[in-house]
Amino acid sequence: MMNINIIGRGNVGSHLFEALRNKSKINFVNPRTLAEFDKNADLSLIAVTDSAIPVIAEKINGFEGIVAHTSGTTPIEIFTPYNFPTGYGVFYPLQTFTKGKKLNYSEIPFLIEGSDSTVENTLINIASEISDNVRLCNSDQRKLLHIAGVFACNFTNHLFTVAEQFLKENSLDFNILRPLIKETLDKIQYISPYDAQTGPAIREDTDIINNHLYILNCNNIKMAEIYRLLSDSIINTYKDLKK
Amino acid sequence: MMNINIIGRGNVGSHLFEALRNKSKINFVNPRTLAEFDKNADLSLIAVTDSAIPVIAEKINGFEGIVAHTSGTTPIEIFTPYNFPTGYGVFYPLQTFTKGKKLNYSEIPFLIEGSDSTVENTLINIASEISDNVRLCNSDQRKLLHIAGVFACNFTNHLFTVAEQFLKENSLDFNILRPLIKETLDKIQYISPYDAQTGPAIREDTDIINNHLYILNCNNIKMAEIYRLLSDSIINTYKDLKK
Repeated sequence: MMNINIIGRGNVGSHLFEALRNKSKINFVNPRTLAEFDKNADLSLIAVTDSAIPVIAEKINGFEGIVAHTSGTTPIEIFTPYNFPTGYGVFYPLQTFTKGKKLNYSEIPFLIEGSDSTVENTLINIASEISDNVRLCNSDQRKLLHIAGVFACNFTNHLFTVAEQFLKENSLDFNILRPLIKETLDKIQYISPYDAQTGPAIREDTDIINNHLYILNCNNIKMAEIYRLLSDSIINTYKDLKK
Repeated sequence: MMNINIIGRGNVGSHLFEALRNKSKINFVNPRTLAEFDKNADLSLIAVTDSAIPVIAEKINGFEGIVAHTSGTTPIEIFTPYNFPTGYGVFYPLQTFTKGKKLNYSEIPFLIEGSDSTVENTLINIASEISDNVRLCNSDQRKLLHIAGVFACNFTNHLFTVAEQFLKENSLDFNILRPLIKETLDKIQYISPYDAQTGPAIREDTDIINNHLYILNCNNIKMAEIYRLLSDSIINTYKDLKK
């Protein structure tokens, strides 16, 4: 049984704790005090904000197990200034984590990188105890996937928030959009999002677009800006490719 | 059994035909030639691009059944210049329709408006044969719901397309994002999108944001613009409300 320090108790740390607790001995470490840190553990997983990764690396410098962070964007080279004799790596779950929201961990893609193949194999084995979707991925690819994930998850969720707040301001119920949201997601299980696009922009229906922009400009300038930019982006996407 | 003209054979017309064909006699009318149009029908549903609605209304002026369009944004008053003695209205399904993609029609919200309550009741009865989610809605509310739907459906789908194309350009597979997209949608069944937000912008992680913007500015200026605007919008959303 592996002995693992999980350093960080935020969304990612809490979920990794939940996912690994039955498979390994877990020390759930407070990143400020390092309370619960076991210096004889096999692995320290650093699950903190990216800018705090070097702070933790500095604090545990000389740790004799493997050290890995869980970030999409921070490259593996963040660890090169430190002395981690067994090696270091990346253990990145490509998922949106909210504390308390249950997840099916077996579907989560884990993107692994290691300072050598022994480290990679160890991290792959640990991730495979949680997930059926584990693969090697270098720092450049991981960053591009993280950016794509920001568009596909963080930004889409924000558009739901924008829609929800707009409806609330107008005394309308967000729930009426739920079947539409469900179908938007369901559709791209079968066809590519490119082929699934509908709405005024792909039809280049400038009457509707201008009417919506007029209403938004009177109500909510920031929504108008988003509306204009994304409608232009849709129009350009299909113009370029239809040529 | 009602006798219904469906004028328009696009995404909406095709799905209304599919949904109503077992409940009514349907004349599936070509909007250019009006072939199949039955002037003795009980109802003519105009399912065409918004700008073509008055063109069709002009062509069928004097029709003695009810006339209704299926648009989210065009107000009911579009019909006032015409002579439709039985009355006119709106029969708006708030859903994204793609030809050939099967749908569970019973969940689709149908938003109904009529020139009088008899028209409204007839339209409600027809919609209720398809859906369990039928309600009255005036033209102003319908337009706001349409705008919210553009954000929650058309724009989110476009962000999936942007992510897909970005990954393709970098020889990476969009399928790796599917569990993330699934969870993004699943999460808001349980918590509000406002509470579900994750990612660099809500953490105001300017290191990551600037790093992503640097990469996008080198690769894809339009994605950089979207990234900047939506990240700013997220930061502002939570700043305003945390105060």
